[in-house]
Order: sequence, then structure tokens, then C-alpha cells
Amino acid sequence: MSLLAVGTVAFDALETPFGKTDKIIGGSATFITLAASYFTKKINLVAVVGDDFRKEDIRMMEEHGINTRGLQIKEGQKSFFWSGRYHNDMNSRDTLVTELNVLADFDPVIPEEYQNCEYLMLGNLTPSVQKTVIERLRKRPKLIMMDTMNFWMNVALTELLEVLTMVDVLSVNDEEARQLSGEYSIRKAAKKILTMGPKVLIIKKGEHGAYLFRDNLVFFAPALPLEEVFDPTGAGDTFAGGFIGYLASTRDISFENMKRGIIYGSAMASFCVEKFGTERLVHLSKPELESRVQEFVDLVQFEISMV
Amino acid sequence: MSLLAVGTVAFDALETPFGKTDKIIGGSATFITLAASYFTKKINLVAVVGDDFRKEDIRMMEEHGINTRGLQIKEGQKSFFWSGRYHNDMNSRDTLVTELNVLADFDPVIPEEYQNCEYLMLGNLTPSVQKTVIERLRKRPKLIMMDTMNFWMNVALTELLEVLTMVDVLSVNDEEARQLSGEYSIRKAAKKILTMGPKVLIIKKGEHGAYLFRDNLVFFAPALPLEEVFDPTGAGDTFAGGFIGYLASTRDISFENMKRGIIYGSAMASFCVEKFGTERLVHLSKPELESRVQEFVDLVQFEISMV
Repeated sequence: MSLLAVGTVAFDALETPFGKTDKIIGGSATFITLAASYFTKKINLVAVVGDDFRKEDIRMMEEHGINTRGLQIKEGQKSFFWSGRYHNDMNSRDTLVTELNVLADFDPVIPEEYQNCEYLMLGNLTPSVQKTVIERLRKRPKLIMMDTMNFWMNVALTELLEVLTMVDVLSVNDEEARQLSGEYSIRKAAKKILTMGPKVLIIKKGEHGAYLFRDNLVFFAPALPLEEVFDPTGAGDTFAGGFIGYLASTRDISFENMKRGIIYGSAMASFCVEKFGTERLVHLSKPELESRVQEFVDLVQFEISMV
Repeated sequence: MSLLAVGTVAFDALETPFGKTDKIIGGSATFITLAASYFTKKINLVAVVGDDFRKEDIRMMEEHGINTRGLQIKEGQKSFFWSGRYHNDMNSRDTLVTELNVLADFDPVIPEEYQNCEYLMLGNLTPSVQKTVIERLRKRPKLIMMDTMNFWMNVALTELLEVLTMVDVLSVNDEEARQLSGEYSIRKAAKKILTMGPKVLIIKKGEHGAYLFRDNLVFFAPALPLEEVFDPTGAGDTFAGGFIGYLASTRDISFENMKRGIIYGSAMASFCVEKFGTERLVHLSKPELESRVQEFVDLVQFEISMV
């Protein structure tokens, strides 16, 4: 079933202990759609770029089956640009540059052919834009998932809380879950957030894995212990894209299937961090993906018979 | 098969955001043996206390099937005492008092009836004492496991490295693994430490779970997401005691069985942190333990068939 992904398509310039890049393609919707493209080919993108955006990057997305009809290209304007430098531990980073450019007045226009999408993924964006997207869909999707970040909790909490009441799945990291709920315990934080709108909550813990909460059910998937994390940029979005892409491809939003979605999302994220930006996500093979998923199975599976 | 546990038996005085205690029973060997007692009743303790140690605490250990013949009681001396205050996040703490007392010149005497033990657990102690214990056993145990901490890496690294060459299993936390190996990546750290002596490495990550490494195999078990962590003191020792107690009771040191040991150890640790000190470990029932292990199964199990 078709997946609509809304978010940023942008330029990133990255510095890690392993090297640095010029402006390369980045943005939440870029990672989401690329990751999802390994599960479904019915992906519709809504985003905005300037006329500085490279044709070959758009072509690359289309080659992955991503419909870019909803990608607005603003003549005479520049694409959203973010530059950051990661510290040695790769868990913290400094933002060097943030230029909103076209993002400052992004009006998310939904092409007619995108109506009737069954799965909606709202990547990290101004909550009011996320809300507008939901309102512009004539038929409510079967599943609406949103990602957000602490920045919006600080500057647009009221709007954020309103969007929360409109979605089915929320994904945030552990610090964001704590900030949003006011609870330090992840278990308590999850319980509280599940009263704020979303029926399903994903709490991402980076190298420490991710939780999936729904009612009183909880599932946990570790991150794969990699020898080297090369560049964590986009890992959370890649995770979300793998998750919802898997759900869309299987048309099954049961808790059992969401668990599998978490594993596929984690597998995609583990590829993402192995190279700069989207580099590793562009040419993945099916056997590579399957063997990576098998690593997750091996990592956590055990057999126990009660004594 | 019989398990010999060597470590500290001591007094702790604790302060957490939930309250504070007077002097209560603590120490690495206390938590190790109590946890192990839920799996095997052939537990031999070697440790030292002063004559201030409470008879009822020793009786409590004996009621758990712990042989205290090797618990030296030093007349006119005081027991090891540690006092600490946990911060609000429960992940960091300040040491308020450390009084070595009887521990300062601890000579680990092995009672004759302890010879021929098949499993040896060396709790956190001066590396030279750990070494002495191994040397005083006429027959090498089937499995020797040791725990240590960063303190010994700072003050007795040479001795520590020597003991490492004599053991089969090492358990440390993630920061200690990084310090010991000089590698930030947990995967690289594990690879390096596995060349230093131990064939099996356990890396504990507290609320983020634990890794088990052996050759090129890796297994991960999460910690249970609890609503409240009341007091983390002893959780790592409890984990180790559950792990080796389970191995000793099943007489199976295969990787598959060690995975189960990690799950049982994690289950025991999840009880430990629910109350102060050993309080929760003293009266556990079998159904409680089984239902807790089932929570771990539910937390991580998923079924995937490759597409």
C-alpha cells in the first residue's frame, strides 16, 4: 500500500573523526524514503528544495521508486542546509550551520495522486506543517506516524501536543521522551505519552537500541554492535523509514508485525551509520539486508524452558 | 556442581532519591551468593568480616544454602564499610565513606572441603587476592569467572592483567571495557580483551543491558524497563551470581547455555534494584523468577521469515 512521506530534503555538510564531506544530500524525508524503498515501491514524497538542489540526487530518489511529484523546487531559492561536527564518541555533536532557506515558509502541497495513501510518515518538521499535511488528506490514512525532536518541545509545544492527538505512532529518542513526559523512567514516560494521543510509541536509544510500546506491551530491539560508527546522521530517520516501509509492504499493523518492523528498521539504521550520509543506503542488496536481519536474530535469540 | 564465590561481605549505607538506610548487609560476595542460591544449593563462600557483623545476616546466608565455613570473622576488627549517595538519574553516585577495615589484609583461606569446586566466581577484589585464590585451589575449576572494576585498572593494572590470563570469563561494564582495551567501540574492545586471557567476555551496560562475547559470537540481553529503579547497589554482582549459579546448576558451559545464564542473571538483577540492598533477593519465589524470565522472553522475542 502506498506510503506518503513528508519531511526535509536538504544539504548536509558533516565532520566526523573519520573525515568530512562537502554538501551532500540529507534531510529526514530523504533517509525515510530511501530506507522505505527497500520494502515498497509505492512511495510518495512531499518536501521542498531550492534550485541549487542537484538533478542527479532527484534522479537517484526516483530510481529507488520514490515519486517526487510532491517535491517542490523553488526557483531562485536555496535548499535547507545543516552542517554539524560529531565528537569522538559519536553520541554528541555541535551544529555549525543551520540555514532554513526554503524551509522557512514550507507549504506542504499534496498532489492529487497522493490522496488515499494508506501510510503517512511525518518526518521531523515544524508541528504546524505536520498538522497541515494531515488536514489536507481527504481520507485519514490507516496509520499515521510522526517523528519529532526536543527543539519543537521548546519552541512549539502547544502545536506539537495538538498534532500528537492526531497520530497513531510517535517516534522520539529517550531524552525527548523524558522531556515530553516529565518522567525520568522510560517505562513511566511511555505510559504517560501513550495517554497524549499516539497508541504506539517508539523510543530510540541510538547505540543502545529501541523500545516499542503499545498498551501494556513492550518490545525491545538492540542496535547491532558495530566495530565502527562512521556517521550517525540520518540513522533515526532511516530506522523510521525501514519500520513504516516494512509495515506498508506487509499491510499489517499488528503488534507482532510492528516488532518485525522494528528489526527491519534497526537493520536499515545499522547500514546507514557505516558511511557518510545516504552513501550506504543507495546500493543495498537484498542478500545484504537479509544477512543483516539474521545478525539481529542471532544477537537476541535464545531458548529457555522453565525449570 | 559446587560453586565457590570469593568477594566482599560488608556493610553498606545507602542514600537514593527514595530514602536512606543505616548499615545494611552488602558486598560483592553477598549479592553473588544470594543470587546463585536460587539455582544451586552447593555454594561455598570465602570472605572476611569483623566481629561487628550481625549473626542474623550470616544465618540468613546459611538459610539460602550458602556454606559460610570460609567466612573469616576477625575478632576486634570491623567489617568493610561503604557508603554512597546516588544522584537523581541513578546512574551516577558519590562515594561518601570507604573503610577497608578487615579487607586491608584479607588472606583468602580456602577450607579443605571447598577444594574440587567446579565453578569459581571471583567477585570484585584486589587482583592479587583473586590470583591467590586460584593458586590455592589444587585442581583448576571447570570455569573461572572474575569481575573487576576501573579502580584496579588505575592502581594495580599489572596484577590485573596477570589474573586475566588465568580466567575463563571476565565481566566488566562498558566504561571499564573501554579503559581496559583502549578502544571506544564496544565490538573492538571485546575483540581486544578476548586476546588478553578470558575466552568469554560479559560487558554490562546497566539499564541498557549486557553483551556476551565468545570468539566471533555475540549475544545481547536488554535490562527490563522498570517503572522505578530503587537502588542499583549490587545489581552487577547479582547479575554475575545468577549467571554462574545457573551455569553451575545446569553443568553446561556452551554458548547457548551461557545465553540462558545471561537472561537469568538479568532477571535476578532486575529484582535486586527494586528494593534497598539485598532486601528483594532474600525472599524470592520460584514463580516470581519464572514470570520475570518470561518478561524477558516477551521483551525480545520476534518471529521473522525472510522475504
